Amino acid sequence: MDKLDAIFAPQSVAVIGASTHKGKVGHDIFANILFGGYKGTLYPVNPKAQSILSVKCFKSISAIADPIDLAMIILPPRLALKAIEECIAKKVKGIVIVSAGFKEVGGEGVAIEKEIGALCKEAGIRVVGPNCLGVINPAPDISLNASFSNRMPENGNISFISQSGALCTAVLDFAADKGFGFSKFISIGNKADVDELDLLRYYHKDPNTDVVMIYMEELTRDAEQFIREIREMTSGTNPTHVLAIKSGTSDAGAAAAASHTGSLAGSDAIYDAIFAQAGIIRCQTVNELFDYAQVFAAQKALRGDRIAIVTNAGGPGIIATDMSENSGLQLARFTDETIKELHKYLPLTANFHNPVDVIGDAAKDRYENTLATVLSDPNVDGVLIILTPQSMTDVMGTAEAIVKIAKNSMKPIVCSFMGIIDVSDGVKLLQKNHLPVYHFPESAARAMGALYQGTKWQSRRTLPQYEIEYDRKQAEEIINSYLEEGKETLGELDGNRILQCYGFNTLQMELATSGEQASRIAEKIGFPVVMKIVSSQILHKSDAHGVMVGLETGSEVEEAFSQIMANAKEYDPEAILDGILIQQMAPSGTEVILGVSRDPMFGHAVMFGLGGIFVEVYKDVVFNIAPLGRNVARRMIRRIKGYPILTGVRGQPPRDIEMLEKNLVSLRAMVTNHPVIKELDINPLFVHAEGDGTTVADIIITLDRTDQRTD
Amino acid sequence: MDKLDAIFAPQSVAVIGASTHKGKVGHDIFANILFGGYKGTLYPVNPKAQSILSVKCFKSISAIADPIDLAMIILPPRLALKAIEECIAKKVKGIVIVSAGFKEVGGEGVAIEKEIGALCKEAGIRVVGPNCLGVINPAPDISLNASFSNRMPENGNISFISQSGALCTAVLDFAADKGFGFSKFISIGNKADVDELDLLRYYHKDPNTDVVMIYMEELTRDAEQFIREIREMTSGTNPTHVLAIKSGTSDAGAAAAASHTGSLAGSDAIYDAIFAQAGIIRCQTVNELFDYAQVFAAQKALRGDRIAIVTNAGGPGIIATDMSENSGLQLARFTDETIKELHKYLPLTANFHNPVDVIGDAAKDRYENTLATVLSDPNVDGVLIILTPQSMTDVMGTAEAIVKIAKNSMKPIVCSFMGIIDVSDGVKLLQKNHLPVYHFPESAARAMGALYQGTKWQSRRTLPQYEIEYDRKQAEEIINSYLEEGKETLGELDGNRILQCYGFNTLQMELATSGEQASRIAEKIGFPVVMKIVSSQILHKSDAHGVMVGLETGSEVEEAFSQIMANAKEYDPEAILDGILIQQMAPSGTEVILGVSRDPMFGHAVMFGLGGIFVEVYKDVVFNIAPLGRNVARRMIRRIKGYPILTGVRGQPPRDIEMLEKNLVSLRAMVTNHPVIKELDINPLFVHAEGDGTTVADIIITLDRTDQRTD
Repeated sequence: MDKLDAIFAPQSVAVIGASTHKGKVGHDIFANILFGGYKGTLYPVNPKAQSILSVKCFKSISAIADPIDLAMIILPPRLALKAIEECIAKKVKGIVIVSAGFKEVGGEGVAIEKEIGALCKEAGIRVVGPNCLGVINPAPDISLNASFSNRMPENGNISFISQSGALCTAVLDFAADKGFGFSKFISIGNKADVDELDLLRYYHKDPNTDVVMIYMEELTRDAEQFIREIREMTSGTNPTHVLAIKSGTSDAGAAAAASHTGSLAGSDAIYDAIFAQAGIIRCQTVNELFDYAQVFAAQKALRGDRIAIVTNAGGPGIIATDMSENSGLQLARFTDETIKELHKYLPLTANFHNPVDVIGDAAKDRYENTLATVLSDPNVDGVLIILTPQSMTDVMGTAEAIVKIAKNSMKPIVCSFMGIIDVSDGVKLLQKNHLPVYHFPESAARAMGALYQGTKWQSRRTLPQYEIEYDRKQAEEIINSYLEEGKETLGELDGNRILQCYGFNTLQMELATSGEQASRIAEKIGFPVVMKIVSSQILHKSDAHGVMVGLETGSEVEEAFSQIMANAKEYDPEAILDGILIQQMAPSGTEVILGVSRDPMFGHAVMFGLGGIFVEVYKDVVFNIAPLGRNVARRMIRRIKGYPILTGVRGQPPRDIEMLEKNLVSLRAMVTNHPVIKELDINPLFVHAEGDGTTVADIIITLDRTDQRTD
Repeated sequence: MDKLDAIFAPQSVAVIGASTHKGKVGHDIFANILFGGYKGTLYPVNPKAQSILSVKCFKSISAIADPIDLAMIILPPRLALKAIEECIAKKVKGIVIVSAGFKEVGGEGVAIEKEIGALCKEAGIRVVGPNCLGVINPAPDISLNASFSNRMPENGNISFISQSGALCTAVLDFAADKGFGFSKFISIGNKADVDELDLLRYYHKDPNTDVVMIYMEELTRDAEQFIREIREMTSGTNPTHVLAIKSGTSDAGAAAAASHTGSLAGSDAIYDAIFAQAGIIRCQTVNELFDYAQVFAAQKALRGDRIAIVTNAGGPGIIATDMSENSGLQLARFTDETIKELHKYLPLTANFHNPVDVIGDAAKDRYENTLATVLSDPNVDGVLIILTPQSMTDVMGTAEAIVKIAKNSMKPIVCSFMGIIDVSDGVKLLQKNHLPVYHFPESAARAMGALYQGTKWQSRRTLPQYEIEYDRKQAEEIINSYLEEGKETLGELDGNRILQCYGFNTLQMELATSGEQASRIAEKIGFPVVMKIVSSQILHKSDAHGVMVGLETGSEVEEAFSQIMANAKEYDPEAILDGILIQQMAPSGTEVILGVSRDPMFGHAVMFGLGGIFVEVYKDVVFNIAPLGRNVARRMIRRIKGYPILTGVRGQPPRDIEMLEKNLVSLRAMVTNHPVIKELDINPLFVHAEGDGTTVADIIITLDRTDQRTD
C-alpha cells in the first residue's frame, strides 16, 4: 500500500480545528466532507464544541478510540505543530495542513514548517501543505471532498495537481461548467513534504489516472531526477500524459549576465527545456489545459499527422483546416475508394474531398456513413467532426452514431458541436463516452495537434549513444591554474585548449604583442587571418571594434594591429590589453551558438541555436538541463525554428549535424566534469558540410571561484 | 435615412414563404420574429394558409394593404425571383433572402442570383443574402429577431457581421452563455448586394455600435477602397473598432509561383496586410474575438503600455504578468507616493509592488483602496484586477467598488473574476456596467494587449509624404520592347534600368559572352567582381550554381566563366545561355528582400522582409496592398520581427531606413504605373548605414503578356 493512499483514499478522517461557525475554513471543510457523501468515517476535533453539524465532536485526536487514516489540520502554526505531535502519537497515516501562515509569511512560520516536516519524516508520515486547498477524490467508493470548495467534481480519468490554492477554486468551477471529470484533485501549497514528483509517481501507478494536469509555480526538486523519472512515466506502453501550465516571471537577474547564453536563460526557457525533456506538454492557458486533457483522456494515439475533417458547414471547416495546419497537422488525401464510397451517401453538392462537407441539411445518416468511410481510409490517421445546429440536424442521432463508430476504431476522433445550449444533449452524450468535444473547431484542431505531439514523443527514436573520449585531466589542470591565480575569465587560447580536451576542432592561433610579431605569426599560419583583441576586461570583442577579419598581407596585419589596439583603448581605457590573437580564418560553414549558463535552481543549462543575428534578434535557441545524450541532442537541434538551415536550403549541402550532436554531448560532459564553469559561449561554431565536422571560431569561458566542487 | 435602416429597423416586415409547419425555416423565422417581441407589424405571406401562429396570412405581398419596409424571403430560387418582382412593385424598402440554392450550388442558381441583384439595384432596393441566417436587432424599440435562431441576444454596443450562417447560430449560443450584448447582428451569405463594407459604413454611423466583429471567408471588394474607407472608420476621434476572424486556406496555386514573393503571398499573408493597413485587429479564435470585443466595447483607450495588476492570489498574478509581457505590455513601476499610500491599507504581508497582492483574506475595502491608489498613479496606464473567491472575499462588494471607481477614471480596467458559479453575481454586475471581465487572468491580459494595439493605431504618427520623381516613360519603353518581342522575363540589365527609372541605386554591370571578354569587363569595373549566369530559363541562379562572388583577378574571372557555363548547362541542358553578367561587388549592407506579386483578387501586393535565409526559413516578411505611402512603408518595416537588425545590433550602425521607405514607395508606384508587371524580386537589396542609401544586388521581373492594361 502506498503512503499517499492514506491521503487520497482514507477509511477515516479527523478534521482537527473543525468549527461550528459557518464561513470559517474549519467549518466549511468539515461540511464539504460530510455533505460530499464521504464513504468512510468522519471525526470533528475541537476542544470546545459538543457537536458540529450534528456530528459528535472530540476534544483531541487522541480522544478518538478508532484508528485515523487522514488528519486534516486547520489551525494556526503553533497549534498545528502541537496537533501534529498528537497525530504522530495516534499513528495517523497521512496529514493535510490546510492553514496558511507558515513559510510564505516568513519568521516563525518558516521554523515551524521545517519542524513539522522533520517530525513527520521521522515518523514516516506524508504531509500535504501547508497553505493548500485540500484534497478531492470523486471515486464512488471514496467520495472525499476535503477542500474549501463545496463542488465535488464528476468522476473521470484526469488528475490535477495545483501549487496555487486560489487557482483550484476557479478550476473546479470551470470544470463543473464543462462537465469535466477528475480522478484525483490536490492542492500542494508550500510543499513542506509532498510535491509534484511524489504525486506524479502515485498518479502513474493509479489505474484510474491517465492524464495529469499540473499548475506549477516553481519546481523545487533536482531537475535531473525530475526529468529522468517523468520521462519514464510519459513513455512506454502505458504512459501517463502530463500537461502543465507553468507561470514564470522573466528573471531580471539574467539580463545582467555576461554571456549570450546567460542573458537568454530566463526561467521560462529553462522550464521549456525541462518539460520538453520530460515529455510534458506545456499549455499557455487554462483553456488549453482543459482542451488538451480531454483529447489525451480519450486514450487514442494519433499515429500520423493526416486528419480528415467532416463538417456540415463550409466556414467552420475552413477554420478547422487552418488551425490544423498551424498545429502541425495536414489534411489527409483520400484514396479513390473512399471518394467512390462517399458518392454513395452524399448529395452531388457535397464536397467529397477533405474537408468533407456533408452540407447543411445532413441528418444522422450522412454523418454516420461519412465518418465510417473516412475513418477506414488508410491515409487517414484521425478525424475531426464539426456539427452546426441547422434545421435538419439530428444532434442526438449524430452523437450516438459517433459514439458507436468510435468504439470500433483505434483512430482518434474529436468533435466540435458548435453552440452551447442547442447541442448540449449531444455534447453530454459524447463526453460520457470519452469523446473530446469542443465549442469551436479551432480548439478541436489545436487539441488534435497536441495529441500528435504527444504520440510523436511516445514513438520517438532511440539511437545508441556516442562513444567519445575526453582528456578530463588536462582540462582540469588548465582550469585549476586559473583558479590558483584568482582569475575567472579564460582567454581564447586556453578556452580552446579545454575545448580540444573535449573533442572540439579549434583554429590555429597565437598571441601577438606587437605589429611585427603579428605579421610574423600570420605568415606562419597562412593568409587570410582573423585578428582579435585579448583582454580579460573585454568580453564582447566586436562591441569594442576589437575584431578584424580577412587580412591578406603582412602589412595589412601590422596596420590592423595598431587600429585594434587603439579601438580597444577607446572602448575601455582601463582595460588591460594582453595583445592580439592572430587566428587562422575559419573554413566557411553555418554559424551556430553553443553555450552554457548556470541556473541557480537547476544547475548547468546547455543552449543551442543559430548564431549571429539569429540569436540576437530571433532568439531562436533551445536549452537543456542534464542529462544530454545523443537522442536529446538530436531533438534539441530539431526544436529550433531555423533547423532547415542545417539540413540545407537553396542548393546548400546538408550540414554535419552528427558532429553538432557530438559537440553538444561533449559540452554537457565538460560542465558536468568541471562544475566550476559558470558560463560559456562558443559563438560562433561553424558547422561544415556533412562529414566535414565543425570549427570553434570564438569561445568565452568564465569560472565561478566561489564554487570549486568537482564530482 | 439610410437604406439599410429598412433592414435593421423596419416598421413592418413581410415573411414571404412563411409556413405552418414547425421546423421549416419559413415557420421558424416567422415564429422568431413574432415571439421575439418585434415592435413593428408582421405579415405572413403564403398563398395556401389562412393564418400562421394565429396571425392572418396573405396570399401575396401585393395583397397587403399597408406599406412594407422589409421583405424576408424564404422560397426556392425561381419563386424567390418572382417574389422579388412583386416586392419591387409593392415598393418594399429592403429585402433579406434567407433561402439557399443560388450561386453556391451553381447552374441556374447563379443566373437567378445575378438577375435578382440587377433588378433590385435598378429599383434602388438593398438585398441581404441569399443563403444567410437573417438579421437581428435587439434594441428595445425594435426587438427584431428575423433569424433561424430562437435566441434573441441582449442589447449592447457590439455589432456582428458573419459570412457564414452556420457560425452565427454557434456564436449566438456562445454569446447567450456569456451574457454578451449585441447592437446589430447580420449574416450576409452570398453577398449578392450588401457586403462587409456596406455594413461597416452603416455601423460606423450607428450611434449604438462601437465595436464590430466580423467573421469573413473572403473579401469580394476592391481592397484599395476597402482599406481606404475602413482606415478612416478605425481612426480619428470617434473610431469604430473592427475585429475580424478570417479563415483562409493556404493557396495551393501560390506554391508554384516563380518568385519568392509569389510563393510567400498566400491569401493569409494578403489578408494580414489588408487588416493591418485598415486598422482591423485580427483574431485567431472565436474566444479571442469575444475577449477583445469586450475590452473595446468599454470605450477606454490604453494610452501607454504600463499596467498595474491587483490580485488576491499570487499564482494568477504571475500568470497575468507573463501574459501581459507576451502581449506587448509592461508592469508599471509605482511612484513612491503610491507605495506609501498602499501601506496605509494593506497588511505587511502584502506585496506593495506590481503585481500588487492584497492577500487572500482581502475583503472589499482593500480592493477598493488599492484600485483607487494605483489607478491614480501617473505611471499607470491601465489596471488588471484579479479576484479569486476565498473565504473572506466579498465578490459583490468588490464588483460594486470597481464599478464606482471605473466611472470616475479615463483609464481602462479589466477584471478576471475566477470561477463561473461562485462569482457570477459580481460578473453580471461588472458586465452590466461595461467592465470587461474574464474567467482567467491570461485572457484579461491578452485583451489589454489588444486594446493597446488598437490605441497605438489610433494615435499613430503621420509624416508628410516623400516627393520622388520617376522616369515612367523610359520604363514603359523598356517593358514594351519585351512585350513586342513576346518575352516575359526581364534580364538583370534591363531590370536594373527599370529600377533606375524609379530611383533605385543599382550596380555597374555588363554582359560577357566569353571568358576573355569577362576578364576585360572586370578590369574596367574594378575588382573584386560578381559573376552571374544570364538565361531566361534560369530564374534562381544560385540553385544552378550560376553565381560566383569576390573574384579578384582576370584569370580567376576567366576560369569562373567556364565553370559557371558548365554548371548552368548541367542544371538545365535545354536552357539558352545569354552569357555571364560581370557585376561590381556591392558595398556591404544588411540584406533585405523587396518583392511584388499579383493576387488574383486584390492586384499587386508589395512584400518586404529580411533577405537570405530569413526569408527562406523564418518567413519574416510583410505584405502590402495599395496604397503605399511613406507612413505605410514605415509601419511595414517596423512590423517584421527582425526590425532591430535594421536599427543596429551589436555595434552595427543603424541602417538607412528612410531610403528603404522610399524604395518601397517607389516600388509601389512602379507596379501601379506598369500593371503588366506580374512578379518581381529584388533579392537582395543591400541597406547601407544611415545616409548611405541602398543598392540593388539582384532583380527578377516577369511580365504578364495577357494583361497589357495601363492606367
